[in-house]
Amino acid sequence: MNSKFLQKLIVPAQSKIILLILDGLGGLPREPGGKTELETACTPNLNALAKKSALGLTMPAGPGITVGSGPGHLAIFGYDPIEYEIGRGALEALGVDFELGPEDVAARGNFCSVDGNGLITDRRAGRIPSEGACELAKVLRTIKMDGIEFFVEPVKEHRFAFVMRSVDLGDALSETDPLKVGLPTLPVRALNRESEKAAHFANLFIEQARGLLAEKHPANMITLRGFAKLPTIPTYPELYGLRAAAVAINGMYRGVARLAGMEVLDVSGDTLPDEFETLEKHWNNFDFFYLHVKKTDTFGEAGDFGAKVHVIEEVDALIPRLLALNPDVVIVGGDHSSPAVLKSHSWHPVPVLLYGKYVRADGIAEFGERACARGSLSTLPAKHILPIALANAGRITKYGA
Amino acid sequence: MNSKFLQKLIVPAQSKIILLILDGLGGLPREPGGKTELETACTPNLNALAKKSALGLTMPAGPGITVGSGPGHLAIFGYDPIEYEIGRGALEALGVDFELGPEDVAARGNFCSVDGNGLITDRRAGRIPSEGACELAKVLRTIKMDGIEFFVEPVKEHRFAFVMRSVDLGDALSETDPLKVGLPTLPVRALNRESEKAAHFANLFIEQARGLLAEKHPANMITLRGFAKLPTIPTYPELYGLRAAAVAINGMYRGVARLAGMEVLDVSGDTLPDEFETLEKHWNNFDFFYLHVKKTDTFGEAGDFGAKVHVIEEVDALIPRLLALNPDVVIVGGDHSSPAVLKSHSWHPVPVLLYGKYVRADGIAEFGERACARGSLSTLPAKHILPIALANAGRITKYGA
Repeated sequence: MNSKFLQKLIVPAQSKIILLILDGLGGLPREPGGKTELETACTPNLNALAKKSALGLTMPAGPGITVGSGPGHLAIFGYDPIEYEIGRGALEALGVDFELGPEDVAARGNFCSVDGNGLITDRRAGRIPSEGACELAKVLRTIKMDGIEFFVEPVKEHRFAFVMRSVDLGDALSETDPLKVGLPTLPVRALNRESEKAAHFANLFIEQARGLLAEKHPANMITLRGFAKLPTIPTYPELYGLRAAAVAINGMYRGVARLAGMEVLDVSGDTLPDEFETLEKHWNNFDFFYLHVKKTDTFGEAGDFGAKVHVIEEVDALIPRLLALNPDVVIVGGDHSSPAVLKSHSWHPVPVLLYGKYVRADGIAEFGERACARGSLSTLPAKHILPIALANAGRITKYGA
Repeated sequence: MNSKFLQKLIVPAQSKIILLILDGLGGLPREPGGKTELETACTPNLNALAKKSALGLTMPAGPGITVGSGPGHLAIFGYDPIEYEIGRGALEALGVDFELGPEDVAARGNFCSVDGNGLITDRRAGRIPSEGACELAKVLRTIKMDGIEFFVEPVKEHRFAFVMRSVDLGDALSETDPLKVGLPTLPVRALNRESEKAAHFANLFIEQARGLLAEKHPANMITLRGFAKLPTIPTYPELYGLRAAAVAINGMYRGVARLAGMEVLDVSGDTLPDEFETLEKHWNNFDFFYLHVKKTDTFGEAGDFGAKVHVIEEVDALIPRLLALNPDVVIVGGDHSSPAVLKSHSWHPVPVLLYGKYVRADGIAEFGERACARGSLSTLPAKHILPIALANAGRITKYGA
């Protein structure tokens, strides 16, 4: 079943859907037979909600596949994350909250060190501090040319996002990082005719950067990788007639939500209560709310089991505020697993809970990996969750007579 | 998700994977409410392993589809058994341990009886004994022609495998069995231009066979069916960078494993302990081991419930030897079901257990059909098992950022 098929069956409704994503929610026990982060957390509110919900486990991109947050979010937003790929450069730009336009070509930039012959001596410029990179970004921003606009946004340490804005820019561009020290940086080559203009301007930029950075050792040169435009993705308003809003603090999630046609709301702070307050404030203006919790993933990746448990408990404590809005459908899930024991994203299916008045509840009064494995949604592709939510929200009509 | 997508994400690792296949593992109870063969068997070792594993049920080719051993194995090896079809002739040749080359065209041969006018009177030559067929095969092997080699390998009773070896042979060839008595055998017709050479030589062979067998009534003629070359299948080394080995006694399983690029190991005997000994002997030389147990299927097809139970118990007793090798990932499953009550292969999903250090264990301390139905792998396509095993073996990197 594809989104075009679904699109034809969409009918308007007054219902409201909340998609609450705990980033990297899925976990693993610390010892055989033990409990995962979610199973360890004290979650009376989520457990009570689980009892009235259908439970399952989502696979973001397929069995055994570990996804980054980009494809993980596309999947839980209902898209096929293999069909719609967001390139690395575009993700880097979204990650620093850059409002990437549909014609922009973005890349991941690195400051690096070169010797007198232009040969790379350090691909990361000794991981210069972020403050230094900010100053260098300002230097690079002085590069101006007719017919094109350049943007340089510091990311962290030696990394920056690089964006070219013009018309007729292609993104089939080769990378300039030779991936080894002792070699010169490579020129950007156009890999198709449509990308020749972009290659031309990227190379002009690089040469000016080389001059401007000459005296800035260790960060006396740059490399550019992962050139990419945003993919064109059918949006929530187009596909489902949904007025959709995103409540997320970090850039990348805001960016992916914007790509799906969601209105990205301003959050006046960076705490969980700030996010819930934003949800409450805009409740009357949208049909669909995506609410993103970052720190479950942050602590999972840091290997901090206890801190991840604590974030889950903080979210649990806020569930009553969410339910007080009387949403018609609530999804609680994740974009991927990030078990603390692995200190990274993982391939493990992600717990999901689907609540609504007409959900056929499993009656399992626990929200956890093994409880969800017993749920009636079973282990399913993440992209299948949204159609089920739309159905429960009365937004899909009958197929055939 | 297809194998090309997966191939791009493969990374090297030191881990080792064992795929233990009990042929025709899945079963049915003898009476309503009873236990299946696997549930009846006393399997303390498999049950203990199950407790630390994720469980599920595999569908080899799709819901309701009963598969032969060829597609059943391709599926559990991670291939789409509908995309990659092994023709009947090729399976017949593999089944007698014939080392079928990529250019060979194989067919299923039958000895049959014809009357003085060349009309078939018995399509199976009265099911002549296998010994007689061996003698007749020797007669047919005397047929020699320039530019082509013929092979005739007895299978059982009136059946034999026929192989043509040359260059530029196509396998789009019509069958010679008219499927009714009272009709003459049909000539082989080329169904496309690339198969004209093969048709020409097949017909020459048949005419010489007619002459050589004239006095051999009841086996005084042959029919050829199911002409097929081996399909071209991307191999384990190509797809996954795995050095893979197969431990199997029967020809067809060895043949399908060879097709997947596995090295087929010599087994010095035909017992289960011989197979486990082979595994142990070669443990250091490969990343992936496929180990095949035939007799579960043999007894399932024979309708011998108790004997199938006993084979499962024999395998269970050998599980500690397998675990003593300290494999990173273990899969225990089957290529299809063969319930004794049906005396045949069946469509029922097949129990599967996936064990590994980073598997999110279901904690279900039983390996059986109904226990597996409660497992977190749920009921899934058999081809999905391998990617999950590769992920658990640390051999798949992240998709997207």
